[in-house]
Amino acid sequence: MPETNRQVLLKRRPNGMPVPEDFAIVDAPLPEPGDGEVLLRGIYLSLDPYMRGRISGQRSYAKPTELGEVIEGRVVGQVVRSRHAEFHEGDHAFGGYGWQTHSAVPGAGLTKLDPKAAPISTALGILGMPGLTAYAGLKTIGQPKSGETVVISAASGAVGAVAGQLAKREGCRVVGIAGGADKCRYVTQELGFDACLDHRGHLDSALEAAAPKGIDVYFENVGGAVQHAVYPRLNDFGRMIMCGMISEYNDVEPRPGPSLVAAVRKRLKIQGFIVSDHAALRPEYLAMAAPLVRSGALKYREDVVDGIDNAPAAFIGLLQGKNFGKLIVKLGDDPSRA
Amino acid sequence: MPETNRQVLLKRRPNGMPVPEDFAIVDAPLPEPGDGEVLLRGIYLSLDPYMRGRISGQRSYAKPTELGEVIEGRVVGQVVRSRHAEFHEGDHAFGGYGWQTHSAVPGAGLTKLDPKAAPISTALGILGMPGLTAYAGLKTIGQPKSGETVVISAASGAVGAVAGQLAKREGCRVVGIAGGADKCRYVTQELGFDACLDHRGHLDSALEAAAPKGIDVYFENVGGAVQHAVYPRLNDFGRMIMCGMISEYNDVEPRPGPSLVAAVRKRLKIQGFIVSDHAALRPEYLAMAAPLVRSGALKYREDVVDGIDNAPAAFIGLLQGKNFGKLIVKLGDDPSRA
Repeated sequence: MPETNRQVLLKRRPNGMPVPEDFAIVDAPLPEPGDGEVLLRGIYLSLDPYMRGRISGQRSYAKPTELGEVIEGRVVGQVVRSRHAEFHEGDHAFGGYGWQTHSAVPGAGLTKLDPKAAPISTALGILGMPGLTAYAGLKTIGQPKSGETVVISAASGAVGAVAGQLAKREGCRVVGIAGGADKCRYVTQELGFDACLDHRGHLDSALEAAAPKGIDVYFENVGGAVQHAVYPRLNDFGRMIMCGMISEYNDVEPRPGPSLVAAVRKRLKIQGFIVSDHAALRPEYLAMAAPLVRSGALKYREDVVDGIDNAPAAFIGLLQGKNFGKLIVKLGDDPSRA
Repeated sequence: MPETNRQVLLKRRPNGMPVPEDFAIVDAPLPEPGDGEVLLRGIYLSLDPYMRGRISGQRSYAKPTELGEVIEGRVVGQVVRSRHAEFHEGDHAFGGYGWQTHSAVPGAGLTKLDPKAAPISTALGILGMPGLTAYAGLKTIGQPKSGETVVISAASGAVGAVAGQLAKREGCRVVGIAGGADKCRYVTQELGFDACLDHRGHLDSALEAAAPKGIDVYFENVGGAVQHAVYPRLNDFGRMIMCGMISEYNDVEPRPGPSLVAAVRKRLKIQGFIVSDHAALRPEYLAMAAPLVRSGALKYREDVVDGIDNAPAAFIGLLQGKNFGKLIVKLGDDPSRA
């Protein structure tokens, strides 16, 4: 067991697209678990678009990461030392904190994981926050009905891949948008979307062809030019599930959005949501999704980057669409996959 | 009784702000009521912002008015001749059609009015489509709660005046936005809004002062600069009731809207609606509102223009915010107000 806790700190607030110099990698002493706490050795760290907001320091729904602090993040790992009655050395658990190899966290905030039920990394992806995000957005805002056309941007990503598969199960025509031929092939051939469009191509004409009856539900993950191509094709009573706009998170000045005159004429609903507002849906989502993941009916793909030192570069790549599947940093050995 | 039916036809589709030359005033023969129809002598014609969409010819939720046709409009009047069992000469009714002094319409589409219950012109305003619009927008989208701050644009207009009074009755802080000191004085002193801001002034700082706790619900009637001033002040979970954007209806190219990144971060709901989708709410609205109108607890103001020949100029004025209260054209004598 190492003597130190390797951490990534926020050194400087990014101005536009983050650069490696915005982050500092340091070795700190191993944290000491207090009463009721657990020392967790991290195995996988989740990297997610929301983190761009946390390090920006701007007013948002969550407290920003301060300069010099460990960057926020969710971790699965293994208990090294426990001062909580329900956790024991060697237990696998979800709920470690931050871009660091070790964390001392209250046992009350940890969830035990059974590596035999599903790979522990899925607690960061399809059976974790991104999966619940897809479910909550569809259930509370999009409400797609059989026969409707659903368009999903960042379709090969952690949220989009789940959203599209769930909409297919509702009987919808599902059109993905992703970056490049490889991702699009995966989205149609593996995930079973009806079509997938490369956003680097001529999106207007491609959407016209792939969604000839217009678009009823748009699961928005990216913003930018993709949003401007989808918006005019929304049908009357169309719903825009505003999950994220990753392509605009690095803008220094906000970009204009589409004219809202169409929102009046077509009775559109454009609604944002944050998964943490819908934690109450977690049990029903897991009851539905976990068996489908085990049976292989719900598919997922992980993009695993090795080592905490590579977290900043991987995160920058995420903001540029370079990852292919749920982006995860491997922090240490995974004995459950030996 | 005149021998002719005086009509306003659409001569040319307006390019931008309509001009008098877009309209033609003609005398046609009196229409002949068919079986089950009624010949109605119009007394009041309602002029409403939605008509700008009808004469534009663009794709919308309703069939556009074709060139050479009478422009769509709602009329209250008096039965001249009836070929429908339930209507008799002299009856007052709502449901006449178009910018014209007379119309032959199916009795099935007419609603009898009792001039003793309320002035018949209110069937075009506070007890008609505009009143129901205010009610439906608040009930189905805004859902304001006691203590919340509600901002209403075009606050002295037919819809805004009702929306604000209803929100006050829910216990909200209600801030109106209107054009000029006279309208603002009316909105606060007569309608009882907590504040009213002149959109020709410094709206940003005025909103800051009038809505110090931010804005929870925005009843959008105007768009443009007002929308851009209100949007950044919406609170988390804020709702934008997209009723209309009159200041942009004459744009040849759509103007950009606000960045939707805030819709994600703040979980905003931006939703359009059309009153005709909510006709089922009419009975409950009238049951609530009619007694309040009779008692004077719900106030309204009409801007009555005399004579069908003045309809085009009055409509152009409506699009420029020149009317003060519900805009109505008097088509002929009103014996109920004698």
